[in-house]
Amino acid sequence: MKKIAVMTSGGDAPGMNAAIRAVVRYAVNNDIKVVGIKRGYAGLLDEDFVEMEFASVGGIMEKGGTILRSSRCPEFVRKETRAEAAKILAKHGIEGLIVIGGEGSLHGAMFLEEEQKIPVVGIPGTIDNDIAFTDMSIGVDTCLNTVVDAIQKLKDTASSHERAFIVEVMGRSSGYIAAVSGLVTGAEAIVIPEIPVNYEALGNKILKERERGKINCIVVVAEGAASAYTVARHLEHRIGYETRITILGHIQRGGSPTAFDRLLASRMGVTAVEYLKRGISYVMTALQGGKIVPVKLDEVLKQKKTLNMELVELTALLS
Amino acid sequence: MKKIAVMTSGGDAPGMNAAIRAVVRYAVNNDIKVVGIKRGYAGLLDEDFVEMEFASVGGIMEKGGTILRSSRCPEFVRKETRAEAAKILAKHGIEGLIVIGGEGSLHGAMFLEEEQKIPVVGIPGTIDNDIAFTDMSIGVDTCLNTVVDAIQKLKDTASSHERAFIVEVMGRSSGYIAAVSGLVTGAEAIVIPEIPVNYEALGNKILKERERGKINCIVVVAEGAASAYTVARHLEHRIGYETRITILGHIQRGGSPTAFDRLLASRMGVTAVEYLKRGISYVMTALQGGKIVPVKLDEVLKQKKTLNMELVELTALLS
Amino acid sequence: MKKIAVMTSGGDAPGMNAAIRAVVRYAVNNDIKVVGIKRGYAGLLDEDFVEMEFASVGGIMEKGGTILRSSRCPEFVRKETRAEAAKILAKHGIEGLIVIGGEGSLHGAMFLEEEQKIPVVGIPGTIDNDIAFTDMSIGVDTCLNTVVDAIQKLKDTASSHERAFIVEVMGRSSGYIAAVSGLVTGAEAIVIPEIPVNYEALGNKILKERERGKINCIVVVAEGAASAYTVARHLEHRIGYETRITILGHIQRGGSPTAFDRLLASRMGVTAVEYLKRGISYVMTALQGGKIVPVKLDEVLKQKKTLNMELVELTALLS
Amino acid sequence: MKKIAVMTSGGDAPGMNAAIRAVVRYAVNNDIKVVGIKRGYAGLLDEDFVEMEFASVGGIMEKGGTILRSSRCPEFVRKETRAEAAKILAKHGIEGLIVIGGEGSLHGAMFLEEEQKIPVVGIPGTIDNDIAFTDMSIGVDTCLNTVVDAIQKLKDTASSHERAFIVEVMGRSSGYIAAVSGLVTGAEAIVIPEIPVNYEALGNKILKERERGKINCIVVVAEGAASAYTVARHLEHRIGYETRITILGHIQRGGSPTAFDRLLASRMGVTAVEYLKRGISYVMTALQGGKIVPVKLDEVLKQKKTLNMELVELTALLS
Repeated sequence: MKKIAVMTSGGDAPGMNAAIRAVVRYAVNNDIKVVGIKRGYAGLLDEDFVEMEFASVGGIMEKGGTILRSSRCPEFVRKETRAEAAKILAKHGIEGLIVIGGEGSLHGAMFLEEEQKIPVVGIPGTIDNDIAFTDMSIGVDTCLNTVVDAIQKLKDTASSHERAFIVEVMGRSSGYIAAVSGLVTGAEAIVIPEIPVNYEALGNKILKERERGKINCIVVVAEGAASAYTVARHLEHRIGYETRITILGHIQRGGSPTAFDRLLASRMGVTAVEYLKRGISYVMTALQGGKIVPVKLDEVLKQKKTLNMELVELTALLS
Repeated sequence: MKKIAVMTSGGDAPGMNAAIRAVVRYAVNNDIKVVGIKRGYAGLLDEDFVEMEFASVGGIMEKGGTILRSSRCPEFVRKETRAEAAKILAKHGIEGLIVIGGEGSLHGAMFLEEEQKIPVVGIPGTIDNDIAFTDMSIGVDTCLNTVVDAIQKLKDTASSHERAFIVEVMGRSSGYIAAVSGLVTGAEAIVIPEIPVNYEALGNKILKERERGKINCIVVVAEGAASAYTVARHLEHRIGYETRITILGHIQRGGSPTAFDRLLASRMGVTAVEYLKRGISYVMTALQGGKIVPVKLDEVLKQKKTLNMELVELTALLS
Repeated sequence: MKKIAVMTSGGDAPGMNAAIRAVVRYAVNNDIKVVGIKRGYAGLLDEDFVEMEFASVGGIMEKGGTILRSSRCPEFVRKETRAEAAKILAKHGIEGLIVIGGEGSLHGAMFLEEEQKIPVVGIPGTIDNDIAFTDMSIGVDTCLNTVVDAIQKLKDTASSHERAFIVEVMGRSSGYIAAVSGLVTGAEAIVIPEIPVNYEALGNKILKERERGKINCIVVVAEGAASAYTVARHLEHRIGYETRITILGHIQRGGSPTAFDRLLASRMGVTAVEYLKRGISYVMTALQGGKIVPVKLDEVLKQKKTLNMELVELTALLS
Repeated sequence: MKKIAVMTSGGDAPGMNAAIRAVVRYAVNNDIKVVGIKRGYAGLLDEDFVEMEFASVGGIMEKGGTILRSSRCPEFVRKETRAEAAKILAKHGIEGLIVIGGEGSLHGAMFLEEEQKIPVVGIPGTIDNDIAFTDMSIGVDTCLNTVVDAIQKLKDTASSHERAFIVEVMGRSSGYIAAVSGLVTGAEAIVIPEIPVNYEALGNKILKERERGKINCIVVVAEGAASAYTVARHLEHRIGYETRITILGHIQRGGSPTAFDRLLASRMGVTAVEYLKRGISYVMTALQGGKIVPVKLDEVLKQKKTLNMELVELTALLS
């Protein structure tokens, strides 16, 4: 392997830069040239390439976002588009591709190898923690801490009976962020896509908490389960609570990555290059029990990651 | 003066606890007893009182919110209610009252002295910075840093053409938080109550920024000027931008107070007690040119604080 | 099991409060009474006990330190002292004990069960990450983020040739904190107890980095390997660098715990109670591959946790 | 005025980048060209210049340190060196110079105008807050918050009788940082250059606090008054306390600037350009009572800023 490429794709996540840095520096230390592809698959098709040296990635580890930028590229679902991409990679002498991103991005990578025989390694990078076979994806830990910090500030503010704070967090198909942030901030309730919302039960729970003497009332809602406004309307209607709404939005994708995300990203970046070097491809780097292991891309992508329901039970037990 | 009372009232603000601590400790050091009134004017009417010693306020300075809690008390607009309050204060031998809060709370205090002859000193505490004659109110600096931190995270996240991030911040009648946070984060535009929104001009400004090569687009909106959703709809409709929304909500009221707010609150708390001790009342402690000075309550409350338009111009010039 | 006790012992670590909260609330939900023992083994001997209810642990999860306080208790090495402790526990009807702390604290717990037949469960809480058989101890993740945040600030400050910043961090026998924080901040070198310091090699490495064009020079030193002053003297003497020293000290033990530490502590707290309830004791709750599992206390304590040398190599490869 | 230059000099301070950004953008908006001088006076002598456009300063406001870097330049005390500097400025057609830095840096600027007739405007940038006639210098507010955050973490950690935490902070000739951070964290004592240390009184004060029931003991020491080690030795010797030491060092110069520092720096940067444009020079931009005003450089530099002793008294009264 003389030359590889690296890209970030899909929604960005804190720690992607640390992964890029590790890919570039480990490759350079192994005499492998690295091309940075800007803006994901869209940039690949546009040949928006940049040569990356050891010094190109200095001072980026601590930065949120991705220096290579990212984008969605709907046309990459078409086989002809992918064939085009493969030609471009071949033209530039690129013998392997590392894709850092979420499920959609890994799908693109999988097809590039299946159809076009480009050796690919995927690195899971998404704040949603919805990728199967890896305990954590890059960005999840930072996102969690951002959400926890925000909810903690809500807990400071003047509590009063008959008022509820509704916090809408990311998670289209996964309630991981809502469940864990709710658990570790002692939120009174969570609303997640994995469990159909029962507004009657939700209202009753809040009334019961109040009877127990609690004056705080925080409900964490995953965007994929309901909108904060819908939850607010139900609470106002059913139990007569005033509500206050916080929608964190994309601040959850930003921020300097935590130590955990930097370490995970550094290890995955190094491992991805090592895999390509040893001829291992069509895999994702996965964190399993503290170790980075390869998992076949088709297995990753046909499995839906399920939420550990123990987390949800813990919230109910401890708050 | 042998015995005074202190309360926090209205929307809470970071630093209120530091003010309570300073009031209590400075009074105790001057052999003045302090009664803490819980839940503002509502707690006054309920005689929800607590005796405060030097040690009662240990370890509270760094906490957001207010240990005395706060509330709104609509019935306090009635003169009979205030007469009732005065009787309660007299019954408890309370010779002076310190009220920490925003405009509404200071109004209540003003009438207590005008009508009921209770010596009062107000301390401006509100994140909106909408109280006249004081350069800053307690809580503004912390709130600003919370907003700046959030917007900074947005700037990390993948920028792309034709996408705008709309951030809704506090400020019902004042655009101070939006104007300053927009200025110091380099936001592309701000929408504030002081200036009628011109959506056409806003759209054009964003398109012009894009032509100049900018790919970030952040618009900071004060809640009193428009809702983030309204701004988003206009931008989507007029210039075809996708939008992403963040509504910070009450996280702006929380968080451990900054050094500035702790210092301001400590100085104002000490000064408020000093005023009562010297027989100065019917005033608010105001920060003017680095000094704490007394300003008559009626003057404070008949004057609307205006936003320094230089701040708005700076944003336009520098971003 | 009708009644158990919980204590924190030894050096404190962020997240201990979250563990206490989980122990108390899970026990109460299972109709088990909980006694909080203040100041570790010293408080046990003094019968410094407090009954804990569901509400006693409200709002503590986010706080650094430990509400039960902690202490060292050298006399607990004597068997007679431990017999005394067992009598006290029996007198209070305490049927099981949960000890949250580091190696020394777990030793005490082990002997209490071996000799005195008190069922004990240990929870690993120490920022040093030096307890065997658990991937992480409570407090490590928060400590790492505190250190990373500090080093990151150093990287901001004016860099210049021929100047080195030496940062001394915790770790008497383990270089974990130094190694990981050095790795994820791109420090130029680390000095850890696991590897004898070679000042000549250290000086040469720094000179080589400089030749490569780097102007930053940060050396992270674990307190157990050398003092920052010693390292500074050597660098000044050998390569003529000016040095600037930062000693983080006990700020590494403080701070609101991260999401990771809160989650780990919550899970371990719940599991510890569950073990006692099921008759499992003489174990420590250990994090292995994402799961909480029981490991016998004698095994934990006869094994020295070794540092994963891959981390050290990564630092050398990537910085 | 067609072309000006800007430099940062001496010890760096958070917010310097915001000042550079404001200088550049306001100048460009006024059709004035801006040259960035790297590494302060040393870079001026080396003609280490860079042309700065509107876009050159994008995304720098939030960064600690200074993109222009900084340095000390001892040879600038010589008149011949300054004559040389003036020739270089003339050669490049630079008609005015903005110097961002502390006292030493402003001295250089003053002589450049007095002797060499280069119009200069100084901007006070130093974390020490030791520049006369300005309420605050750029960087002070950020530094204070960094120190407060660190001390707050110390307060979390297990308190015990007969132990003191000594925190050494910056301040060679000014105790401002120590005094304010001590005040707003409730430190038990401060040691500052303005007041000769009396170790006997210090020991007695701590013993008295302990008698009052306090178990925390934090002493904040300005580096210019004593070293943390000296204070520790005295406390151990006189009152038998164990001590734990934290030396914050240069982390106090780093970190993303606070809202206050960004705003102050933006206003001063704009004003400095405005002064040059209007023919006002030989001045420093000073913050007085919320306004930016010009103060003659010779006045600034012959006056020593004195610490407001009210701050010191407040600490004694409130802690």
